[in-house]
Amino acid sequence: MTKKVVTFGEVMMRLSPPAYAKFSQATSLELAFGGGEANVAISLAYMGLNAAHVTCFPDNLIGRSATQFLRHHWLDTSSVAYGEGIMGKYFLEKGAVHRPSEVVYEREDSAFALIDENTFDWGHILHDADWLHWTGITPGISAGAAASCRLAISKANELGIKVSADIHSRKSLWSYGKSKKEIMPELIAGCDYVIAGSKDISEIFDIALPTGSGRFKSAARQLMQLYPRIETVFDKNRAAVSASHNRIQGKMWNGETVIKTPELDVTHIVDRVGTGDAYAAGVIYGLLHYDELRQALKFATAACALKHTVEGDANMVSVSNVKALMEGNTSGNIIR
Amino acid sequence: MTKKVVTFGEVMMRLSPPAYAKFSQATSLELAFGGGEANVAISLAYMGLNAAHVTCFPDNLIGRSATQFLRHHWLDTSSVAYGEGIMGKYFLEKGAVHRPSEVVYEREDSAFALIDENTFDWGHILHDADWLHWTGITPGISAGAAASCRLAISKANELGIKVSADIHSRKSLWSYGKSKKEIMPELIAGCDYVIAGSKDISEIFDIALPTGSGRFKSAARQLMQLYPRIETVFDKNRAAVSASHNRIQGKMWNGETVIKTPELDVTHIVDRVGTGDAYAAGVIYGLLHYDELRQALKFATAACALKHTVEGDANMVSVSNVKALMEGNTSGNIIR
Amino acid sequence: MTKKVVTFGEVMMRLSPPAYAKFSQATSLELAFGGGEANVAISLAYMGLNAAHVTCFPDNLIGRSATQFLRHHWLDTSSVAYGEGIMGKYFLEKGAVHRPSEVVYEREDSAFALIDENTFDWGHILHDADWLHWTGITPGISAGAAASCRLAISKANELGIKVSADIHSRKSLWSYGKSKKEIMPELIAGCDYVIAGSKDISEIFDIALPTGSGRFKSAARQLMQLYPRIETVFDKNRAAVSASHNRIQGKMWNGETVIKTPELDVTHIVDRVGTGDAYAAGVIYGLLHYDELRQALKFATAACALKHTVEGDANMVSVSNVKALMEGNTSGNIIR
Amino acid sequence: MTKKVVTFGEVMMRLSPPAYAKFSQATSLELAFGGGEANVAISLAYMGLNAAHVTCFPDNLIGRSATQFLRHHWLDTSSVAYGEGIMGKYFLEKGAVHRPSEVVYEREDSAFALIDENTFDWGHILHDADWLHWTGITPGISAGAAASCRLAISKANELGIKVSADIHSRKSLWSYGKSKKEIMPELIAGCDYVIAGSKDISEIFDIALPTGSGRFKSAARQLMQLYPRIETVFDKNRAAVSASHNRIQGKMWNGETVIKTPELDVTHIVDRVGTGDAYAAGVIYGLLHYDELRQALKFATAACALKHTVEGDANMVSVSNVKALMEGNTSGNIIR
Amino acid sequence: MTKKVVTFGEVMMRLSPPAYAKFSQATSLELAFGGGEANVAISLAYMGLNAAHVTCFPDNLIGRSATQFLRHHWLDTSSVAYGEGIMGKYFLEKGAVHRPSEVVYEREDSAFALIDENTFDWGHILHDADWLHWTGITPGISAGAAASCRLAISKANELGIKVSADIHSRKSLWSYGKSKKEIMPELIAGCDYVIAGSKDISEIFDIALPTGSGRFKSAARQLMQLYPRIETVFDKNRAAVSASHNRIQGKMWNGETVIKTPELDVTHIVDRVGTGDAYAAGVIYGLLHYDELRQALKFATAACALKHTVEGDANMVSVSNVKALMEGNTSGNIIR
Amino acid sequence: MTKKVVTFGEVMMRLSPPAYAKFSQATSLELAFGGGEANVAISLAYMGLNAAHVTCFPDNLIGRSATQFLRHHWLDTSSVAYGEGIMGKYFLEKGAVHRPSEVVYEREDSAFALIDENTFDWGHILHDADWLHWTGITPGISAGAAASCRLAISKANELGIKVSADIHSRKSLWSYGKSKKEIMPELIAGCDYVIAGSKDISEIFDIALPTGSGRFKSAARQLMQLYPRIETVFDKNRAAVSASHNRIQGKMWNGETVIKTPELDVTHIVDRVGTGDAYAAGVIYGLLHYDELRQALKFATAACALKHTVEGDANMVSVSNVKALMEGNTSGNIIR
Repeated sequence: MTKKVVTFGEVMMRLSPPAYAKFSQATSLELAFGGGEANVAISLAYMGLNAAHVTCFPDNLIGRSATQFLRHHWLDTSSVAYGEGIMGKYFLEKGAVHRPSEVVYEREDSAFALIDENTFDWGHILHDADWLHWTGITPGISAGAAASCRLAISKANELGIKVSADIHSRKSLWSYGKSKKEIMPELIAGCDYVIAGSKDISEIFDIALPTGSGRFKSAARQLMQLYPRIETVFDKNRAAVSASHNRIQGKMWNGETVIKTPELDVTHIVDRVGTGDAYAAGVIYGLLHYDELRQALKFATAACALKHTVEGDANMVSVSNVKALMEGNTSGNIIR
Repeated sequence: MTKKVVTFGEVMMRLSPPAYAKFSQATSLELAFGGGEANVAISLAYMGLNAAHVTCFPDNLIGRSATQFLRHHWLDTSSVAYGEGIMGKYFLEKGAVHRPSEVVYEREDSAFALIDENTFDWGHILHDADWLHWTGITPGISAGAAASCRLAISKANELGIKVSADIHSRKSLWSYGKSKKEIMPELIAGCDYVIAGSKDISEIFDIALPTGSGRFKSAARQLMQLYPRIETVFDKNRAAVSASHNRIQGKMWNGETVIKTPELDVTHIVDRVGTGDAYAAGVIYGLLHYDELRQALKFATAACALKHTVEGDANMVSVSNVKALMEGNTSGNIIR
Repeated sequence: MTKKVVTFGEVMMRLSPPAYAKFSQATSLELAFGGGEANVAISLAYMGLNAAHVTCFPDNLIGRSATQFLRHHWLDTSSVAYGEGIMGKYFLEKGAVHRPSEVVYEREDSAFALIDENTFDWGHILHDADWLHWTGITPGISAGAAASCRLAISKANELGIKVSADIHSRKSLWSYGKSKKEIMPELIAGCDYVIAGSKDISEIFDIALPTGSGRFKSAARQLMQLYPRIETVFDKNRAAVSASHNRIQGKMWNGETVIKTPELDVTHIVDRVGTGDAYAAGVIYGLLHYDELRQALKFATAACALKHTVEGDANMVSVSNVKALMEGNTSGNIIR
Repeated sequence: MTKKVVTFGEVMMRLSPPAYAKFSQATSLELAFGGGEANVAISLAYMGLNAAHVTCFPDNLIGRSATQFLRHHWLDTSSVAYGEGIMGKYFLEKGAVHRPSEVVYEREDSAFALIDENTFDWGHILHDADWLHWTGITPGISAGAAASCRLAISKANELGIKVSADIHSRKSLWSYGKSKKEIMPELIAGCDYVIAGSKDISEIFDIALPTGSGRFKSAARQLMQLYPRIETVFDKNRAAVSASHNRIQGKMWNGETVIKTPELDVTHIVDRVGTGDAYAAGVIYGLLHYDELRQALKFATAACALKHTVEGDANMVSVSNVKALMEGNTSGNIIR
Repeated sequence: MTKKVVTFGEVMMRLSPPAYAKFSQATSLELAFGGGEANVAISLAYMGLNAAHVTCFPDNLIGRSATQFLRHHWLDTSSVAYGEGIMGKYFLEKGAVHRPSEVVYEREDSAFALIDENTFDWGHILHDADWLHWTGITPGISAGAAASCRLAISKANELGIKVSADIHSRKSLWSYGKSKKEIMPELIAGCDYVIAGSKDISEIFDIALPTGSGRFKSAARQLMQLYPRIETVFDKNRAAVSASHNRIQGKMWNGETVIKTPELDVTHIVDRVGTGDAYAAGVIYGLLHYDELRQALKFATAACALKHTVEGDANMVSVSNVKALMEGNTSGNIIR
Repeated sequence: MTKKVVTFGEVMMRLSPPAYAKFSQATSLELAFGGGEANVAISLAYMGLNAAHVTCFPDNLIGRSATQFLRHHWLDTSSVAYGEGIMGKYFLEKGAVHRPSEVVYEREDSAFALIDENTFDWGHILHDADWLHWTGITPGISAGAAASCRLAISKANELGIKVSADIHSRKSLWSYGKSKKEIMPELIAGCDYVIAGSKDISEIFDIALPTGSGRFKSAARQLMQLYPRIETVFDKNRAAVSASHNRIQGKMWNGETVIKTPELDVTHIVDRVGTGDAYAAGVIYGLLHYDELRQALKFATAACALKHTVEGDANMVSVSNVKALMEGNTSGNIIR
């Protein structure tokens, strides 16, 4: 039976000038919606999974449009809440070559930031789920978001549902009086799979790392010692030649060894946003569908590479697209 | 010499689906910027006056784009401040016929709301000005905005600069702990010209009105008794046949009599937003250029009618456009 | 509890040049999806009902996009089938004033036309439904579509679910070897509510009508005599001043008397397509929410009028929009 | 056999902001091509006639695009010449309601203005034609254009081809050292049908007119006395309620009586440009296809009214569209 | 004198989301028309040849728009037929990097598929032609299309007109009861020049090939032995690094030796569709204008490479563009 | 205090098909304005300098839109003049890979070409300036433009303001009866900094150059001997791999040695137009802000490279963007 994945986090309105225009040139903005966790859900839905996203929007025509966007992209939105507060937003000016993309966030006092422990009924939400996914952004938004996240993880643990976390964060979060170091340990303790870079692991969990190579291995090993529920730690290497040209390599620590995929060369990038979320979705899909971890990792890396070719936050590619690339077909030949 | 008018107030980002699309249908949004006071300034700039707008934007690429919009439309932006806070915003879904337009505001905690008494140096800003214009929206935004407004009026009075106010407000303002009744009297006392409906006058200044006709006359007369600096009170009648068809009539109380213009029939409306601001701009232009109040009123009414034909918040028509309509040429014949 | 309405019929890709452009001028086409029955479902979903649409699409990226469109507009698409055949299509060139809109259909051999009696499991589909709606288009498409329609109605009757039918048809249907007269009687016999003009009633059911006034009354009365399950017959009058200006009046026969609403004047029409479907949706909503038939009729008429102001096939307005117009507020004043 | 009509005159690039935007708001411009005579040819081509346009474009990618536009709209462009000079241009800012459209011309030193007597081989061009049409714009552009026009008319007369002229002109023409009064008489002497208002007739041919009613009759009668080749003089009345609402009435003098059509009410105008050319095309089609002049006049008037509903310069409607309106069907009901 | 080339085959409506959007993201589609043979004709027309395309469209506003597209791009459309059936269509979702483009065809029961032996009068069509070009798609569409193709080739042979064929096919063709092997031999027997890959040659004509290198030489040699009318066999190598980066090399067998061009590196591809047709057009142009086959081949290869930079199906570049690349100028420096 | 730079030259309307479309495919054109000198001013304004541009536009809605564009992009337009004549224009068809961009100019008889010695009051314009920049285009436009340029340089010399010149020219200029050799020497004699290639230096100033390497050094040294006011000569090398891929290297002669920067590899070019102007702006910014010439040169080269990533004529990047690239950060990583 089709697996059901539940993701939890803020969804923002994404406003960006057309093509490579700068804000100073724009008279219209492309409209989409995205957020680290919903991006994962949408990616998984396009891969055929049953994916539900849990979030909160303002109770007006803007909030309802956001829900419609999620429905459009196949998500189960039956647990979306509506409340006070504005729509979280990010403005994206897309870069090219040596010109970086620039992002401006407006997410303070968003409807999501104003949630509290009672906003969601996690027992109901997770009762038929197979997987829960969250990211390090959510607990950094507000005390209420952190509390909801803790409740969700704890309920998932109680129900025997697998939990994955992508511990990447954003500047300008964690401004509500608590620090990552205070909040994250309790949350990560309930996770089965973690996606994290060695720098984040080191900073958040006070883990000392060697210099030079071997940092990821050391970080992952120590993290798994501290939080024994964790089965695997995933990360990826990104070599940024330019805004238009990156190289992507997946890696993971399975408790015994570091496994790395070959590098995928992605030149002529269409949209870099959400490529980390595409990787996370690939990890989840891979873990659910491959017996061999190495295959799961290759799937995740190919999914990540493909996201660079899709406009918007989410990876709207099919499993067969990913598998073709994973198996080495980089030709992009027309499918008729 | 060209007269210089200074306006003061928040400028919001305006985001609206193309043509008559609803938000639920939009994948891009038209981008403009507007606000009651800046709209007046832009209208006056298109009429050839020197118009400067004073406001505060977030110090990022969005805030700078807003300033660029004002510069594009001829405003002097040398007194724009930049600070913390988000860009104020309004979402506009344009209606037609019996379907009303819908507006969603997001202006809490905007950069403008966060200004304080020291943000602007009014002595410098007004030293070469001939006119100051403000609206009832500004003091409703925050204590800092109200305080700035008070300083601006007081400095204008000190420098012998004419002051006009358009006392219309918006729901969802006045949420910072002060009421209109507490704040507005001191501000209105420094005004020479007021644009206000009898309902607003009655509510804000605790003025009892007769039922039936004569309400505007009564409201205006009592207002001028309370605040003797006021020379004239302007208002307009709007008969809304539908969202696509309105009839506009200007009126004023000059202290002795109510003067009304003939009604202008505006069917096939292009954009209704900002028509009140176009009227205010017409009043200011009229007062500066006509000896006879009746002519000023006719000019203002024609300007207001023309705004219904212009996309966006501001009235980008020329004096010759207004005069043609004011003199009865409604043909819209092509000018080659 | 929220009522659930199930609709059944073909959904076509709608391709139209932007604004009032002609096909000979177009280099891009606006893309939407619509069909008489799905339009009803979407209208009801925007009014807050639980609405599921049953149809069949080609099993490719085009068919999946069509489903996504329905999901976007709030429909339950869990019973959409995928099969062989092309996507049904209609090309719309929008007219204005005296220039009529022109429509070209391409629906032969569509995936929907190729359905058969086994495509849908009506017992499962209708088990939690309160209402089934179909139109005279569906049985005209193919023998399989007619058979499916018959099964749906019969299952609804069996389950005690109300059934409504909108008996309008289109030229170029009924080309599969059966005529309306052969197929429609059995279908209509299972209906509780019928929307039909006197001309269609007369032609399909061989009912002789008087000349002059009283035709609708006579047609409706005789139809209800022939098919005693029918409780009410609805119709509307449309006075087409031009493509941009229509007048709409609802009417019905309740078995005893003809009730008519006042005429609603709709000038500056945005999109006329689907206004009959908006009327049908209004009838269903009205019957489900008003005790008094006259109120239901007024609701339906106001809903129909409002659809003329919405781009696309479906009536994306809220109940409060409809009620405001139904209660006489034609002003279209901005809602802030 | 299909009749062949040859038209002669400048074709300009038409650049206009989208919808009702003003130039001060535009970041893109709609691109089309048009000119009084080519508009007539395109209208006739959409009505099924064989229509060739003779003109001259710059010999570069802009000039070739202009030819491609004419080909797209069915014209025979085998006699288009290419030469030195720029592309003639007009900028159009579309008005609405009381706001007039504004046009800026840039046609000095255009490739067309630089033609001379040898640019076109009229014997070859007209050898299989049935009709030649020109307007008063062409001889006002340059001495070379006037000379070419004279050659064309004279060759048409020689070959027994009917000649029609639409004597309307534009400000900013006739700047090359010759006046209308010097040039037009010789040209008009070779015409069989003339479209002209009484004011133009009076000014150009020094014809004294009575005041009050009867002016058109007097002007037409005297014109036909002066130039006995003329069989009929056509004109139309336009009542401009606003830029969005005109009323159109055709009229003509057949040598014995003034015939007028009923007025057609055109409200919700889409594009007023080229409506006079649509009238001229209607006159030519009518004269070629109706025995009765009154019918030709009604056809021309209906064609003119329909042009107000079509974007661009030319009247891309079918004969059946025109006939429906001519016969009183103003409903604009959808044709399926 | 300018050579006249006649091409014959289906033209489909091409509908594609803007830029790199997926169908699931599109609310509008780019509209163009294309088909393997018409693409060749348009390419040749942009190179200055007289090019006529023979096809059949539905007799409605869509079919006429298709003809207008061909006229726009310089084709002689005097032999386009109109009939029953729908417009053939293909939907194109453009890929990038490792994401392949996807194409969905809808061409069953198209107007072209419904043609028969009497649809076209080949004697009239070819009487002034110098060249006839067809592809392996056409006889795969329907029995009528195959029969028409046979008649065209046979008439060309009779009139001494050169015939070229591009033997590439598409999946989903040949579904009308005949196979390639039954139909193609008779058609190819009438051809002077053939473009074909060794795999197609082997499969269609039952020709055994060696493994390893030398396959093209063997295939071409055997084909020419079987069909002695053939003078040369052309093919090209495409190395697909990704959807955005291909390398192109032309090759041919002249009966004695295999000639190959240097590889052209095409990175930053704009549109890959129709590059094979651009090659075929280049072959025809080259054969008509170069004495040396090697030069013709280089011209064809450069034309093919340039097509990758042009949006749409057809190669809208000039002879001077092709020659510059053919002579080694890859700089793309601005031409002012 | 912020430095003020004054630039002088024609600004043209820039009209280009969207994305990579060709003119033969366009139904709308992107609208912007640009010119070699204004591009420099806008670049400097985005870098935070006070930049004023001096030019002349037609006195109509097109000319005013051009001024609005300059204001939008931060320029001081207080010295823009309005006069007779058309708007200068250039049409840009953007190329890709091996397909070159094509430009068509229409600048004869532009408002700028019609200026004379009295159009501008240089004493007033330059009284508070720190720098004057002009290019070799301006004196090539008309005698009046050359005379104005001479006056500006002479006034700058008189006021002790630095003068820079970019001696690149365009074909189709110098058609007013004077040659570069007659006009340029007097102008260049007043310059402190010159940007010029060795070929231009050799041709304009009759300077003999060695073959092989050392040409730039020889040209620059001889130029500085002839015109001793010149302090430094700048130039750049551009290796054009294709229209989509260039390599840029800055170089200069400081009177003693040739300094070169490392090459910057710019692949996936967005818009090549104006990259030379971006270099010039970088030179001016660098000279004003760096003590070391080598740093100024690196800044200019990075600015030039970044311009390739910005749509339009001008380099709308920030100083921090340039510095990041100048310091070796080519990653284009998203700035959040």
